[in-house]
Amino acid sequence: MRTKVAIIGSGPSGLLLGQLLTEAGIDNVTLDRVSKDYILGRVRAGVLEEGTVGLLDEAKAGARLHAEGLPHDGFSLAFDGRDHRIDLHELTGGKRVTVYGQTEVTRDLMERREACGAVSIYDAADVAPHAIDGGSPFVTYLKDGISHRIDCDFIAGCDGFHGISRRAVPEQAIRSFEKVYPFGWLGLLAEVAPVSHELIYANHPRGFALCSMRSARRSRYYIQCPLDAKIEDWSDERFWDELRRRLPAHHAEALRTAPSFEKSIAPLRSFVTEPMRFGRLFLVGDAAHIVPPTGAKGLNLAASDVHYLFRGLLEHYREGSDSGIDAYSQTALARVWKAVRFSWWMTTMMHRFPDTGDFDQKIQEAELDYLTHSRAASTVLAENYVGLPF
Amino acid sequence: MRTKVAIIGSGPSGLLLGQLLTEAGIDNVTLDRVSKDYILGRVRAGVLEEGTVGLLDEAKAGARLHAEGLPHDGFSLAFDGRDHRIDLHELTGGKRVTVYGQTEVTRDLMERREACGAVSIYDAADVAPHAIDGGSPFVTYLKDGISHRIDCDFIAGCDGFHGISRRAVPEQAIRSFEKVYPFGWLGLLAEVAPVSHELIYANHPRGFALCSMRSARRSRYYIQCPLDAKIEDWSDERFWDELRRRLPAHHAEALRTAPSFEKSIAPLRSFVTEPMRFGRLFLVGDAAHIVPPTGAKGLNLAASDVHYLFRGLLEHYREGSDSGIDAYSQTALARVWKAVRFSWWMTTMMHRFPDTGDFDQKIQEAELDYLTHSRAASTVLAENYVGLPF
Repeated sequence: MRTKVAIIGSGPSGLLLGQLLTEAGIDNVTLDRVSKDYILGRVRAGVLEEGTVGLLDEAKAGARLHAEGLPHDGFSLAFDGRDHRIDLHELTGGKRVTVYGQTEVTRDLMERREACGAVSIYDAADVAPHAIDGGSPFVTYLKDGISHRIDCDFIAGCDGFHGISRRAVPEQAIRSFEKVYPFGWLGLLAEVAPVSHELIYANHPRGFALCSMRSARRSRYYIQCPLDAKIEDWSDERFWDELRRRLPAHHAEALRTAPSFEKSIAPLRSFVTEPMRFGRLFLVGDAAHIVPPTGAKGLNLAASDVHYLFRGLLEHYREGSDSGIDAYSQTALARVWKAVRFSWWMTTMMHRFPDTGDFDQKIQEAELDYLTHSRAASTVLAENYVGLPF
Repeated sequence: MRTKVAIIGSGPSGLLLGQLLTEAGIDNVTLDRVSKDYILGRVRAGVLEEGTVGLLDEAKAGARLHAEGLPHDGFSLAFDGRDHRIDLHELTGGKRVTVYGQTEVTRDLMERREACGAVSIYDAADVAPHAIDGGSPFVTYLKDGISHRIDCDFIAGCDGFHGISRRAVPEQAIRSFEKVYPFGWLGLLAEVAPVSHELIYANHPRGFALCSMRSARRSRYYIQCPLDAKIEDWSDERFWDELRRRLPAHHAEALRTAPSFEKSIAPLRSFVTEPMRFGRLFLVGDAAHIVPPTGAKGLNLAASDVHYLFRGLLEHYREGSDSGIDAYSQTALARVWKAVRFSWWMTTMMHRFPDTGDFDQKIQEAELDYLTHSRAASTVLAENYVGLPF
């Protein structure tokens, strides 16, 4: 088989890139080692920046998002027993975010891709990129026991942190930066109305908590937990009790509970690979960088990578210019590092670090105090939260 | 002797408080263990916030400052070979800072105090506050071999970090927060025109540098140095060479040198004591808190303490209300912690830390990149630099 762009990974970044290319008439194939249902079974966050929504519209996959997504004009920072609203809309001159589960984004992109008849290969074993430093790259995989090869112009590595794409790059050509945080997030999903119609980020002496949602009837709650916490030690009851303790009283009283139907612990990590291009292979999204979930930048950062790569490929195929793809790594990384910094900063400001001394704890409290009293500082938080411009 | 307010320490904070009280007709005495000339021989920075200038005017000691001080509407952040101007005036809606040496501030206050005939005692040995937790505090000292006692209503501890005032407080009544930075500042004074008419804060892989000034003809330069650096290893020539290496090329070329007439190494420290009041004793300025010099907050923070304490004493004597002095510690500390946070943040952003990993170094670079591209982030720097409102 031959295509222009072979896309490894059918998560939201691979599907979004594929669909933008398809709508632009640029032939592409997506490959994934797992099944559609497996991908759709992943539970992920979903706070979308306007730029991400714009790309989904451009990919003709935004209709349901506009109908069912929840526009959020603000969120709360809770600390010291009170909460302070960050008015995103007012502080950023009219911007907002949209709460719409990543799973739904993936589903919409998959449906649009099928409607277009674009080639999507699932359950592909041993997917591997080849000859990425020459002019004729190709991807091989095994499907139903038979070896396949796809020749292409470019390969997009959209296969996440554990994917093959980044590992296909020679070690000496890559540089990684990493920070592992000394805690995790214990998350719970329940079919119950959220405690507030907006998100609440809480800094409490017992640890961070986040009140989030998937819809008006489905709540997603998180609490900071030690790295060695075990799911089996956390009954629903214990989770709800702990969550209540970390919220201001009026929220704790308003909290409604229901049996959880998903509960999991995720570690927090910041990770960046440089550069994001090696010959004919481009790394996109989680394949190149990971951020802690505080601030909800992961999916949006993948979308901004897709934006830069898609524009570059469009220039290549329509205008015969490589300036866009040649600038991809540098352009994408400049925005990546800003979002990595923001996610690190918001994580640092909102969590309790087990080894933090008295001085650093006071600095954290002074920062929250300053942030909520200064319009400029609130704007810094707001403009990063709604997403810096592409 | 009897007075209303006994002020221990005749640095700028003690003199400013004393002069404000004197102008308001509230009897006070200042005491210092050293001589006037010794105090005037201290070399200190001098970037004054408008609030500080306003207090000096109120103390009738602002005339020479207005005639000779240099108004600064901005400063430069230099990094990555370029420099970026922070336009204080534009970002803060018309505010600016005034460069005027602390020594000159002290001299003006001393002269005004003398002109008013207020009692000032210098070369007072063994100054000590007594009975601070009762209703009748007093201060004792030794002068020319003779013991003296001053009875008073209140004692203001304006005697700096190493002074007796803080140490007079029972240990169990005090809580301290401290951060020691893993580097110092090597500073040099020279009679030569500054390299730029505005300050330059430089972040360079070899370390921080600051181009400052005392006047249009006197330059003050600093370079970050290891904690174990020794003055005798730093000839003027070595200093100038090192400074040049840390500046963007156009500044390095423009730098004019002259023999130094002062050269010293200062460690960097953040320190806060809570609370700032014990019975009848109030701690003011460096006696209660120390900040690293990055951002020039030390003197200005002392002035804001003086502002709160002076207003409280005025209320006490004029209106018979203690609400101002009762709120002193809490009110002053809220602003202190914001300035401590700002000084810590600016120090962290501008210096190279010997033990910083690759990730944190990239975060620092991303922060500078973001700061210089975001109006909101530039405003955060500017509004703190010109001074948060009292």
